[in-house]
This record gives sequence, C-alpha cells and structure tokens, in this order.
Amino acid sequence: MTATPISAVPTDKLAAAVAEFAVVVGDEHVLTGEAVGGHADPFSFSGDATIAPAAVLLPGSVEQVQAIVRAAAAHDVPLWPVSRGKNYGYGGASPRVPGSAVADLHRMDRVLEVNDETGYVIVEPGVTFLALAQHLRDIGSSLMPSVPDIGWGSVLGNTLERGFGYTAHGDHSAFQCGMEVVLADGTVIRTGMGAQAGSRAFALYKGGFGPSVDGLFFQSNLGIVTKMGVWLMPRPQTFSVCMLTTSSDCDLAPLVDTLRPLLLDGTVQSNVVIGNAPVVASMVTPRATWWDGRGLLPDEAIDRITTGMGIGRWNARFALYGPTPLVEARLAVVRAGVESALPAADLRVTTYPGDVDPATVHPADRAQLGIPSTDLIQMAAWRGGTPAHTDFSLVCPPTGRDAVRQMELIRARVEARGFDYAGGFTLNARHAIALALVSFDRDDPSQAADVAALFPELIADAAAAGFAPYRSHTAFMDLIADQYDTNDSALRRTVERIKDALDPAGILAPGKQGIWPARRG
Amino acid sequence: MTATPISAVPTDKLAAAVAEFAVVVGDEHVLTGEAVGGHADPFSFSGDATIAPAAVLLPGSVEQVQAIVRAAAAHDVPLWPVSRGKNYGYGGASPRVPGSAVADLHRMDRVLEVNDETGYVIVEPGVTFLALAQHLRDIGSSLMPSVPDIGWGSVLGNTLERGFGYTAHGDHSAFQCGMEVVLADGTVIRTGMGAQAGSRAFALYKGGFGPSVDGLFFQSNLGIVTKMGVWLMPRPQTFSVCMLTTSSDCDLAPLVDTLRPLLLDGTVQSNVVIGNAPVVASMVTPRATWWDGRGLLPDEAIDRITTGMGIGRWNARFALYGPTPLVEARLAVVRAGVESALPAADLRVTTYPGDVDPATVHPADRAQLGIPSTDLIQMAAWRGGTPAHTDFSLVCPPTGRDAVRQMELIRARVEARGFDYAGGFTLNARHAIALALVSFDRDDPSQAADVAALFPELIADAAAAGFAPYRSHTAFMDLIADQYDTNDSALRRTVERIKDALDPAGILAPGKQGIWPARRG
Repeated sequence: MTATPISAVPTDKLAAAVAEFAVVVGDEHVLTGEAVGGHADPFSFSGDATIAPAAVLLPGSVEQVQAIVRAAAAHDVPLWPVSRGKNYGYGGASPRVPGSAVADLHRMDRVLEVNDETGYVIVEPGVTFLALAQHLRDIGSSLMPSVPDIGWGSVLGNTLERGFGYTAHGDHSAFQCGMEVVLADGTVIRTGMGAQAGSRAFALYKGGFGPSVDGLFFQSNLGIVTKMGVWLMPRPQTFSVCMLTTSSDCDLAPLVDTLRPLLLDGTVQSNVVIGNAPVVASMVTPRATWWDGRGLLPDEAIDRITTGMGIGRWNARFALYGPTPLVEARLAVVRAGVESALPAADLRVTTYPGDVDPATVHPADRAQLGIPSTDLIQMAAWRGGTPAHTDFSLVCPPTGRDAVRQMELIRARVEARGFDYAGGFTLNARHAIALALVSFDRDDPSQAADVAALFPELIADAAAAGFAPYRSHTAFMDLIADQYDTNDSALRRTVERIKDALDPAGILAPGKQGIWPARRG
Repeated sequence: MTATPISAVPTDKLAAAVAEFAVVVGDEHVLTGEAVGGHADPFSFSGDATIAPAAVLLPGSVEQVQAIVRAAAAHDVPLWPVSRGKNYGYGGASPRVPGSAVADLHRMDRVLEVNDETGYVIVEPGVTFLALAQHLRDIGSSLMPSVPDIGWGSVLGNTLERGFGYTAHGDHSAFQCGMEVVLADGTVIRTGMGAQAGSRAFALYKGGFGPSVDGLFFQSNLGIVTKMGVWLMPRPQTFSVCMLTTSSDCDLAPLVDTLRPLLLDGTVQSNVVIGNAPVVASMVTPRATWWDGRGLLPDEAIDRITTGMGIGRWNARFALYGPTPLVEARLAVVRAGVESALPAADLRVTTYPGDVDPATVHPADRAQLGIPSTDLIQMAAWRGGTPAHTDFSLVCPPTGRDAVRQMELIRARVEARGFDYAGGFTLNARHAIALALVSFDRDDPSQAADVAALFPELIADAAAAGFAPYRSHTAFMDLIADQYDTNDSALRRTVERIKDALDPAGILAPGKQGIWPARRG
C-alpha cells in the first residue's frame, strides 16, 4: 500500500519480454526507444523522465491481449493498459512504474453493435467519441452519444476513468452496461448477463446473477476491458440549450441552489456546467487577448471578458431533451424557477430540431447535443508558451454553500501559485465536480514547479474540508488514495487483497489509483 | 464451484459457536431449537428440513456483527445474513447450507440520516419500507420512498437482492449509493466517498477513487452490509397514475412496443407493470371467486374476471411525476403515442396531488406513489389451502417479440404442471423482468412436487432461448448459476477467487447465488 520508492524493471527482463511481445503482436506493433515518446505524459510538470514507457505494444485482438498479459507475467514486466491514452490532463498514456510496457488498445476500434430499438452500442477500446458519432450518422442510427470536452479520446477509456459528458447520459460510468475483461492470468470474463453465453441482454441489464464485478474495473488495475456496452439516448425531437448567466461573483450559491431542485425532480436532464468568466474565455481565446500584464488576471480584465464575450461572472449551461411539447413544458418550469429565485439572471435559450446538421450548431452548444469536437484543446494555450494543462477535480455535495467553499479553497491556492482561477462545477442532482483547469507553459520550469507544488496543497486543503478528488494525474495517485482513510484505509486494503488474488504477479498497472500489489508495494 | 453434496456442520462445532455467539449478543438474542422455525422457508416446496437454520443470531450493532463473524470463523460455522428475511418467494431467511446460523439484522433498524436537500437517506438493515415511509412522514420530509409489492421487507435487503419498486426510482439497486460492509475477517469498509473519513458525499457520489466494490455485495456472500445510502425522489407536485388495458391476449407485443419508446426518451419515468387478468385478480381475490372447477382457469373464467373487475386481458400500470404542467405535458405525449399505436386500448388516468393523504389513494395506485402496504400477501392464497408462492423472474430484452416468446415459454410449462399462468412483466427502458407468480397449497404434496419439478423445466427452456433468471429460490441457485456459462463459467470462477481471498474460511453464506468457497465446494 505504501508506494515509494518504486524500483524500475531491470533492462534484461524488459528485452526478453519485448522479444516475446513482438512475436504476439508483430514487430511493427511494438514501439521502443524514441518511438515511445508519443506515449509519454504530454503535459509533464514533474520533469521526471522515468515515467515514460519502456515499450509500447499495440495488440489487435482480445487473443493478443491475453497473450501479452501472459508474456508480461512470465517476464515480470508491468503492463499499463490504455484505450487511446488521451487522458491528457491526468498523465496521458504514461505509466506509474518505470520500465512498464504500455498496452495501447487503439487498433481494436470496432463498433460491434448498434441497437436503436433498445438504445445501446457495444464498443471496443479504440472507438473514439468522434468515430462513434460519425458511425451513428453514417448508418442513420436514431441514437446520439454523450461526449466529453474533447472528442479524440476513447468512449470505453473515458467511461472507465469516470469521465463525463453533458447530455442526459453525461455521467458516463452510470450508463455502462456489460463488459468483457481480460484478467491478469489471461482469463476472459463477460460481466452481467454476458456471463450467459446465449444472452442478448449483455448491454441491457446490469445485474446478472450474483455479485456484480463491473465496478471493479473503473479506474482500475484489476483487468483490461476489451468490450463495453454503453447506453445511448434516442435523438430527441427537440433540443433546447439553456445558458443562464449572472453578473456577480456572489451569485454562485443561489445559482447552484436554484438549479439543483430542477435536476432532482428531473425537469433538467443534462448536468449543468457552471464556469467563471476566465474558464469560458479560455475555451476560445488565449489569456493575452484580455490581459498582457504580469500577475493574475485583474478584475478589469474580467470585466473586459464579460463585456466582450457577452457572458456573466458565472455561466451555467444545460439542456432539455424530448418530444417538443415536453421540452416546452420543461422550459416553462425552468423559467419559472429562475425568475422566482434569480430574477437578475439572464436566461438565453437556443432550440434545435433533433435532426439538426451538426455544422450549423453553435460551437458552445455542441457538447449538450452530443456532437464531439476537438476545439477545446485551445484551453491548454491560455497561458501561452508550450500549451499544457492539468485538472483538479473535487467531488462535493451539490449545494451552494459547498460550491462556494470549494471555489474559495481552490481559488486561494491556485492564485497563491500565480495561476488564474479558471474553473467551475459540473452540477448533477446529487453531486458536483469542482474543476480547476490549470493551464501552464510546459517549457517554463517555474510554472511547472508551481503546478507540482500546487496539487499537494490543494489536496491537503480539500481533505481538511472533507472533500477529495475523484480522478488524478498519475503523479498524485498515492497522495489522493491516502485521503481515503476510513478505518485505517480499509477499502484500499480490501481492493489490494482482491488485486493480489486476481493478479498475484502484480503485472497490471501497479500503483494505478494507489492500488499496489503486495509484490511491488 | 460444484455444490452438491453439501455436508452439514457438525453438532459439536455448532454448540461451541452458539455459546460464543450468546456472549456477544446476549442469550436472549440467540434462538435455537424450535425457536428458529420463524426463519425456515415459509413456502417450502422441497420438503427438505435440512435448510432450516441451526441457530438464529440477532446482533444489535456493527461491533456485534464483527464479533459474530470472527466467532463463526473460529468455530467453522457458516453464517447466513439476512436483513429482515422477508424474501419469501425465494426461500425467506433459510440458508443454503445445513447447520448454518442465520444472522438476522432486524434489530439494527435506524434511519441514520434523511437529507431532503440532496435527496437521500442512510439506513440500517432492519429498516422496512413501511418504517421508512412512516419516518419520512413523521419528520415532514419532502422525500418519498420507492416500495416493492409488500412493504414489510428491508429497504437495504431488497436493494441488495436487486428487488424493485414502481416509481421513478423503481430499479432499487440503481439508486444505492454508499455502503458500510463487514467482511469475513471483521474488517469494516465504507465504499465510494465514505472511504474518506470526513466526507459528506458518502451517499451522493458513487464513484470514489479507484475501483468500486459496491457491486460485489449485491446477491452476495462477500460481506455483510450494515449501512446503505439510498437516493430518494422528491415528492412531486403531481402524480398521474396511468392504467392502459387491452382486450386481447394478442396485444402484449404492441403494448410493449408502444410503451418502450416512452420509457427510453424519459416521458414515462416509472417502470411499467404489465399483468394478465389472472395475476391482477389474484391481488384481490382467491381463484375460487372466479372458478371452482378442476384444472386450469378456463377462458370463460378469465372473461368473468375482465368483466367483473373492469380490467383487460393485459393491464399496464405506470406513473408520471413532477411539476403539474410537466406531468400534463408527459400525459399528452403518452396519450398521443397510445392513440396512434394502440387505438383500441383503454387509458385511464388518476391524478393525485403530491401531498395526498395515503389513506385516500386507491390501493392499486399505492405502489406508484411509494406508499407501502402488505395487501398483496393475498396473492399467495390464490390456489386455496395453506397459502404459498414462489416466483420465476426472467430477464429479457424489452421488446414485444421477446415478451411474447417468454410468455409462451413460461405459460406452456406452468400450465403443463397444472398452474394457472398468472404473470406479466416489469418493463423498463432497457430490460424487462418476466414474472410468473406460482401460488400453491403448501400442504398439498402433489402441488409442492409440481413446483419443485417446474422450475428446472423453466430454467432449461429459458436457457435454450437465451434467457436467464436474475433471482432465485435458494433451492435453484446452483442450477441458475450454471446457466451463466460463458468461457467455462469464467465470471463465476472469478467471483469465487475473490470469495476465497476475502473469506478463506468460507464462513459467509456459502453457496449463495452458486458462489462456493473452495473449502466447501
């Protein structure tokens, strides 16, 4: 359970393993030396080259994944599986343990099934949000995906990391149903109803018979997920995207407390993305557009942003879906709620037909319509220099007072390290994720050092207030796992017992999310 | 993994264990001899007395549960935990292995928290649906529970068995968030955000950091759940309960195919309970009211039921919730869908205000309003004699053709054994549970023998068609687990590896859902 120091894998073991990996996947699908650079942390702030992978393997089938796992165990070389490795704010494809081989599954990129009648798809790890959306359009499916900020990542990988999008299915892990998983010994399991060989309910009913194991494979090193069922929404007759803006920094609490009841009673179906003016500005412009001086973005520059972009100090975006009369009724309830609780706020509504041409949708509304793009790569360029960012993602109760408390906590620490507070919340009915986007110039050592110092400070402050992150850069996984400390970290120790039972050699992603096999602890 | 024969626990071990259990919980909270009769299968059809518990323990605290588990391991006596043991259609509180001690948690019956603001409660195992509903009313909570057919059972226990109710939160296991669990070695874990000691998000965010273990404790023998967070709906401004009836046996497929899209797009929020005329009749009358002859209920008797009760050959009940204008819009969409697809069907709607007095709600509408009762105990008395029933619960895709296929499959086997087909479906957006209620006279050995023979026939037919039950009487757990056979039952073997890691002595509920510890396999 205690993780440091971590020893690297000896070079001779690695060389023997690589030779065997090449037999399995073919020479052209094993990358070593300089060729692994594309799988290092793209936004590294640690300056620590040891987290670059020692090799990258590109299996093309479940059978190859099974063979790779067995070879890794035979040669005692850790494997770090990624679907497409686009988890950029959190370390990209880079492993936790030096000397690991990254198993990059992007070649397994088939959409195996689309079922319009009952609303699901089954995907392999390599299917991106961009590819899934295109595929659904190409075949004329009635379904729509939910997509995160940047569409180049894996649907399966994002879901496993508990990523989210912005539709009624935005809580991606909640809409997973059915997995195929390769375990450390090469066993292939199908979960839920998929455990019955002839079942057609693999992606329809989560329960199955007996304990459910699906949860074990989220943010996990207990297996390699090779297929996943994902529930999709039917494309509605009408979308209404709502943007609610307020003119004062002090409106955060009433904003949250006005919208939460509308989420709780199902009037609003998507989550609500709440961002301050700098984070909204960073989506479309570099910081220099608004402020070219030294130090933090001053209040006058924030005024220029709100005036220039026609946005508020706080900006809440959400969407309504369904048959047209139902969307209209939802909107009337939203309007009534906002007018009574936040009379000074501005509610702007854009309505689209279900069959809208994606090219005609306003870029800011795309996520709520399940239209993937890569526009928000822009956000990493906020500070200028070599664009890089990392995210701080804190779980909190969805109340105004919790939102304010976290915002103040995060803001104080971020600003003390010289970063603008560009952040907000993804508000759901029963939880909020507080997000701070920390953009930095990767080639500026002092900025990188500030990032590295900032996160432990944020984590400590959050823990003192009873909050903890749900996701993390590889560099901070142990530190965050340490915060989950109930009963002498009984949960973590229990997962480690399961780890040792399923992967006694400690081959799969040792250290991921702070879960260490006994052999490497 | 193969389960039979099961050897009983030696008497001397049991006596020593009982003595130690009495030290832990007090003499008055250990039942032995005749006193355990209340924990035997109340509707036994096997005539096999060996499944009566050898002792019953009534712990009153988490600490006592920890001590009991340790004592059971020390004396090698299996423990069969139940919350209230009201799982009557599936074996009640009776254990799988002869000589087991039942750990009945009903004394731990506190509602630990009610959070109106964010919509959850935290309950102990002994809290019944009746008690939770009463507690919410007593404290003036704005929340409402979802309740199953009979309200005397445990909220926590029903949820763990993947039971269901009939509101927008009817899929009970989907609305669980956060657990406290005592493992076989006495370790106490809190899952999800509860793993952070100071967190206030225990019952708000399911994910936590790293793998989720909650799923492991459903239909499980991997731990004893002592606390659970449950998400509740806010009581809406308006309820509309809809009853859609059709006059022909042939209307099942169009009924399902008309309602599924309304579930998929969120217009209808509750599940849809679809029942044939005999099952609806059995809720309020014994069979003799309609037919006193021998053999199966004839078509003329079913006509008497539909005419006498003013119901259809198929009857679908569901509900709409929310602010009044939104419920009205939902209803308009439902009406339009039904009129275009099922013009001959009859749609009856009863609307209630959110603060309706439960005493004034029509008994048939109570479940959709989250009002628990025990009226449906009546159903076991359908056949006359000593009332007993058991249920056959098959998962299927939510399509008309699957519903018909299962109905025909079940009907043929049930009728061949001399039972009326009294059944239907609980239809959800992405799955249906086909239910056949088999009522019998427990004191008629030939009826009991027919029940015992019927289930393996049903299971075999279902498997051949690609269906399987999600739940089972203890007597058929191994047989059903055998149907989940993908890759040489890889999932079951994996869960058994986890079982052996967490419970090497095989103390907790060996054989539950076909999961056997290596020591007792």
